[in-house]
Amino acid sequence: MNNLYMDQISWVEYQQRVEAGAVVFLPCGATEQHGPHLPLGTDALLSTAISADVAAKVGGIVAPALAYGYKSQPKCGGGQHFCGTTSLDGATLSALVQDAVREFARHGVKRLVLVLGHYENQWFVAEGIQLALRELGRDCDLEVMRLEHWDFCQEQTLEDIFPDGFPGFALEHAAVIETSLMLHYHPQMVALDKIPDDLPADFPPYDMYPTRTEWVPPSGVLSSAKGSTAEKGARMAGDIAEGIAAAVRHEFALES
Amino acid sequence: MNNLYMDQISWVEYQQRVEAGAVVFLPCGATEQHGPHLPLGTDALLSTAISADVAAKVGGIVAPALAYGYKSQPKCGGGQHFCGTTSLDGATLSALVQDAVREFARHGVKRLVLVLGHYENQWFVAEGIQLALRELGRDCDLEVMRLEHWDFCQEQTLEDIFPDGFPGFALEHAAVIETSLMLHYHPQMVALDKIPDDLPADFPPYDMYPTRTEWVPPSGVLSSAKGSTAEKGARMAGDIAEGIAAAVRHEFALES
Amino acid sequence: MNNLYMDQISWVEYQQRVEAGAVVFLPCGATEQHGPHLPLGTDALLSTAISADVAAKVGGIVAPALAYGYKSQPKCGGGQHFCGTTSLDGATLSALVQDAVREFARHGVKRLVLVLGHYENQWFVAEGIQLALRELGRDCDLEVMRLEHWDFCQEQTLEDIFPDGFPGFALEHAAVIETSLMLHYHPQMVALDKIPDDLPADFPPYDMYPTRTEWVPPSGVLSSAKGSTAEKGARMAGDIAEGIAAAVRHEFALES
Amino acid sequence: MNNLYMDQISWVEYQQRVEAGAVVFLPCGATEQHGPHLPLGTDALLSTAISADVAAKVGGIVAPALAYGYKSQPKCGGGQHFCGTTSLDGATLSALVQDAVREFARHGVKRLVLVLGHYENQWFVAEGIQLALRELGRDCDLEVMRLEHWDFCQEQTLEDIFPDGFPGFALEHAAVIETSLMLHYHPQMVALDKIPDDLPADFPPYDMYPTRTEWVPPSGVLSSAKGSTAEKGARMAGDIAEGIAAAVRHEFALES
Amino acid sequence: MNNLYMDQISWVEYQQRVEAGAVVFLPCGATEQHGPHLPLGTDALLSTAISADVAAKVGGIVAPALAYGYKSQPKCGGGQHFCGTTSLDGATLSALVQDAVREFARHGVKRLVLVLGHYENQWFVAEGIQLALRELGRDCDLEVMRLEHWDFCQEQTLEDIFPDGFPGFALEHAAVIETSLMLHYHPQMVALDKIPDDLPADFPPYDMYPTRTEWVPPSGVLSSAKGSTAEKGARMAGDIAEGIAAAVRHEFALES
Amino acid sequence: MNNLYMDQISWVEYQQRVEAGAVVFLPCGATEQHGPHLPLGTDALLSTAISADVAAKVGGIVAPALAYGYKSQPKCGGGQHFCGTTSLDGATLSALVQDAVREFARHGVKRLVLVLGHYENQWFVAEGIQLALRELGRDCDLEVMRLEHWDFCQEQTLEDIFPDGFPGFALEHAAVIETSLMLHYHPQMVALDKIPDDLPADFPPYDMYPTRTEWVPPSGVLSSAKGSTAEKGARMAGDIAEGIAAAVRHEFALES
Repeated sequence: MNNLYMDQISWVEYQQRVEAGAVVFLPCGATEQHGPHLPLGTDALLSTAISADVAAKVGGIVAPALAYGYKSQPKCGGGQHFCGTTSLDGATLSALVQDAVREFARHGVKRLVLVLGHYENQWFVAEGIQLALRELGRDCDLEVMRLEHWDFCQEQTLEDIFPDGFPGFALEHAAVIETSLMLHYHPQMVALDKIPDDLPADFPPYDMYPTRTEWVPPSGVLSSAKGSTAEKGARMAGDIAEGIAAAVRHEFALES
Repeated sequence: MNNLYMDQISWVEYQQRVEAGAVVFLPCGATEQHGPHLPLGTDALLSTAISADVAAKVGGIVAPALAYGYKSQPKCGGGQHFCGTTSLDGATLSALVQDAVREFARHGVKRLVLVLGHYENQWFVAEGIQLALRELGRDCDLEVMRLEHWDFCQEQTLEDIFPDGFPGFALEHAAVIETSLMLHYHPQMVALDKIPDDLPADFPPYDMYPTRTEWVPPSGVLSSAKGSTAEKGARMAGDIAEGIAAAVRHEFALES
Repeated sequence: MNNLYMDQISWVEYQQRVEAGAVVFLPCGATEQHGPHLPLGTDALLSTAISADVAAKVGGIVAPALAYGYKSQPKCGGGQHFCGTTSLDGATLSALVQDAVREFARHGVKRLVLVLGHYENQWFVAEGIQLALRELGRDCDLEVMRLEHWDFCQEQTLEDIFPDGFPGFALEHAAVIETSLMLHYHPQMVALDKIPDDLPADFPPYDMYPTRTEWVPPSGVLSSAKGSTAEKGARMAGDIAEGIAAAVRHEFALES
Repeated sequence: MNNLYMDQISWVEYQQRVEAGAVVFLPCGATEQHGPHLPLGTDALLSTAISADVAAKVGGIVAPALAYGYKSQPKCGGGQHFCGTTSLDGATLSALVQDAVREFARHGVKRLVLVLGHYENQWFVAEGIQLALRELGRDCDLEVMRLEHWDFCQEQTLEDIFPDGFPGFALEHAAVIETSLMLHYHPQMVALDKIPDDLPADFPPYDMYPTRTEWVPPSGVLSSAKGSTAEKGARMAGDIAEGIAAAVRHEFALES
Repeated sequence: MNNLYMDQISWVEYQQRVEAGAVVFLPCGATEQHGPHLPLGTDALLSTAISADVAAKVGGIVAPALAYGYKSQPKCGGGQHFCGTTSLDGATLSALVQDAVREFARHGVKRLVLVLGHYENQWFVAEGIQLALRELGRDCDLEVMRLEHWDFCQEQTLEDIFPDGFPGFALEHAAVIETSLMLHYHPQMVALDKIPDDLPADFPPYDMYPTRTEWVPPSGVLSSAKGSTAEKGARMAGDIAEGIAAAVRHEFALES
Repeated sequence: MNNLYMDQISWVEYQQRVEAGAVVFLPCGATEQHGPHLPLGTDALLSTAISADVAAKVGGIVAPALAYGYKSQPKCGGGQHFCGTTSLDGATLSALVQDAVREFARHGVKRLVLVLGHYENQWFVAEGIQLALRELGRDCDLEVMRLEHWDFCQEQTLEDIFPDGFPGFALEHAAVIETSLMLHYHPQMVALDKIPDDLPADFPPYDMYPTRTEWVPPSGVLSSAKGSTAEKGARMAGDIAEGIAAAVRHEFALES
């Protein structure tokens, strides 16, 4: 079986697979507080693991993750006042993506998927893709898909996991979804005994700058992670990997 | 024993270690062809592994590596015409480093070491550090060390490994040093049987743009990797880790 | 009564009001297709009108709107393939906001509210604010609020207006909310007879670049604008203006 | 009759007019002190009003004005030390223009006129146009005219209005020309009773940084606005609109 | 007597003079067509020669000239379509000036004069100075003067040299003023026999992009250089050097 | 015989020579401390002089030097703490080179040689060339050579000049090579009596930021300049000029 990770294979092997039409997956993570029970690298670890699951299904390659992401915002990541959160300016992240897309196009890659694991990355990653495609011009036949992995959880799954109602993906920072996915993929990095008892955050419909740090639970966990299990993680991971694989096959006209 | 990797620990643990004075190591790698026998991620893999060895000695933390680096140049990395080599513009890399240094300073880190595993990164990483320190101003008490790991090989070691004379670090791309270090740290990623028979590259004392690709061996290996062994790798890795640890202790006035 | 618009008063009067503690409102709009029945300037027109309503309540000043915004995206604005949509790069918009915030701080403004009327502006405006505050440093006592106006519609209002279920703000592009608000504020610019019969857009949980234009109704209207009335607009405008005014009073400790 | 303002018409109507060859006018103003008697928005208000007059003559469309301009300079706008003056960095203004020109080209616009109402904008607007055309490449058939509106006043008009000699356009900041034009276009925004008695400014043939604020009259009016009338404004407005219309017809080969 | 040129003295001597309060002059030139009779380096050569004359009078130092300037414009330099004209983007020139000003401030220079010899440089040089001073902050006591050298010609001198009326400095590109100054300072670089017979350029009150090259005399000379003499050059050079020296003494409170 | 310097010839003559295939040389220097015995402009002076020697051999043109270069680093130029050293940010230098290369391509230049006289310039100049060629696209037939002049000293020459062993080019800052070359080209600018007695610098295999100024000899001379002579300079200048001329002829297929 093929090694899925671009950084573990030689350029010769990479070239062969790209010439054969392999889809390249670029995980876009962050280095960001995820409460006292999850590691700082959660977003890159999950987007890489999910990329690998999908790549295995569709014959793809996983490029090295972008390990740093856009600035953490209070309502979806706790905010920039946390120690350990290590973030990029928007222009830096867009440039990073633009450079990477330009290079994959040079390699001859025709199908590129950016798998985002950090909510705040979305717009600056999208801008980087658009700047790259504008620069590459109309003759370039690279097509790019961009997604946030959690959007592929099935509705029924969310209903089963959140019988009292789903709080929404933004508030799910370091909460049941991410904790369960980490229990599925990297259980040794989860400290279940450190899940805090903080009440869920309750944000007003606006943002304040400088950050009103009192809005954010001191733990950095925006809604409760209690009830996270590896089983829930496995179910969501299954939804996500299958959903992305189906989207990839559909959009890139791959044989299933 | 402590987990050495920042992305595997929580922000709470990271904060405690930083407050206790931990040195932070930031590996700066690349995604670049390293011949048919070494993986594309060699530079990030080696700078991360070496950072971990040093961090274990001095009580440090290894931040997630910068997995993409500055453009590969013919004389030290083969050049940008290779498939798989995935590089950043200089301004992108400098911004990435500037952002990271700014964030580590916000965390309260006082001692930061950038461990470079890709020759081409040197000047743009140095620029990023200098831009960050200028921005942070005179009141900031962060001190930064920057190094290329191979410069810590002992002279005697190089003499023993290269009895016919050391070709210099630039030409050592994907050759005996990197191959031996990979055999030491990641033997499963080395395909010894694929080491090419190309003659060493012989470059004139100038550069041409666009790249004269005929100057570069088609394999991307700039001098022979024949004779690489895990033992040589272990010896060099020992030199390097001990040398860097000694430098860190000396410059940052740590107790040994 | 005071003139609410900064561009219609002299610098002397502006200075007096700012010294008296006036809140400054900066509408952030766009020039973007809004279907065949709404004008290209809808986002700037609405964010300006709402800013004026709130300014009248709290003794504020409305700065000239940013009339151009970030690139239209298929899922919330139809996308960049429409004629008439005139958009900025992300870095341009962030710089525009950073410059403006720097200048308001120089004026002595202590309370600034950015009122967004274009969904796509959110992250680049937020980045501009954050870059400005970082540049201004810790001694600056400017506080900035950023909001999207529609988030202040009361839940009950949305339930009454959308008895069959609210499609969400993104899909509401050029639909009932914006059309009704325009009928309330600028009825002469609405061509009710041109509301298209397109079915609502149905987007997958990912984005494709270049834009899959076939995903977007040819009219540019993402869900139906049928049923829009000035009365609905008035009710929502009331919710929004009162909601923002309350938020402003609360966060900036103004007397109500 | 057609609505002249792009922000008040739908994209469908805009597209039809552009396909029929309409000239697009982009007013480039500023938010800048104009003495105690004129509003902060004078430059955008005048360049928009003049654009509309010309558009009415040649069948054009007026795009939303750039409401913020380049930094005010002491000798032509009073300088950056005035409260209310809200300016952009040069690179921001150039980027704004570059983005707008790129978008008008995408729309299929062939004839674009940038109507400047703020002296300081000239070079950064010119740079933005040139950067856009370089980016668009040789195949682009967009032609751009750039002008400062006051340059179209007839010599005889200036002689009649300034019987004691014309002080030059730079010193005319917030003085007779701009005050009379505002009395013509927006009389309700002019406070004739607040025209100051300051002596005209007298500048040496060099500039000093930081600004020598003592060089600038405290009112911000660089030469006297006494004697401004709506009639003078009407006469100049007539010169300007006819002059620009003639230039547009000549350069763009329109039928008169 | 002191060597006036910074690039010809050691850092030790430079430091001594700066500590003694020396004024530093930075000539800002261009590499631009100046007709068939003047060299491409005219602007840098003249601004350097004039800087040296002034420095000799006030005890100053002449820094190495910026030899490349902002893009040539048709109305004042002929335009960018001439071979040999070698120009910078506006952002590059501003950055160059910002970097230089930051460095002179670090040296302890308190009095800096930017002597411009290229009309098109003005606004981008001014922007660079302003960006540098903003970055340096309020504690910096560097004062900067910026000037175009020709503005120091006495009125009487211009009347004598142009008995039929002065065409204005913009049209004086490669004409009597510059040719006479070159005959004074660098006669061996002037080819009087190659002065063209082109009629003076006659420009409309607007600009067109792309450049209407037919507006510009094919020689690049915007008004006639006939009648240029070294004597006229000497008289103007005298005016200019004395005028700048007086301004420098006055603004920087030097003893005369 | 032809005048070699671009800034001393007219655009007409320049155009003729470029059309005839002339090689253009762009010297890239610095304004940097070179000890108490060499002038601040050493790097630009030497790269210009050498360019002229080569241009004379191959029928070339010497463009005006870039007189300011990248930031001085302790190990090769002493560092940024010296008074007089006047440096650019990396992005500024790259932009300067990118702009220049774009312009030479517009002129029709096919053969461009960047002659570096400042070690720290290398990577940012290389980046500028690469950015320019990427922008110019595949249809551009400009070829660029980049070199550091000292790399053309013959091995035998170095052995003769350094009988005790060559310390390497980095440490040769302001030492025997540069001093001897200056004695050859510009003897009047060398103060042999001021050559310091500092011991050579001894740097560890890493860099520290902020600069450890105690690592650098207070004079700024990194190894001894004693023993410098004009004869040694002449011999090296001969090697260099002949070496570069041979390389130029070879790469650009000129007749010798």
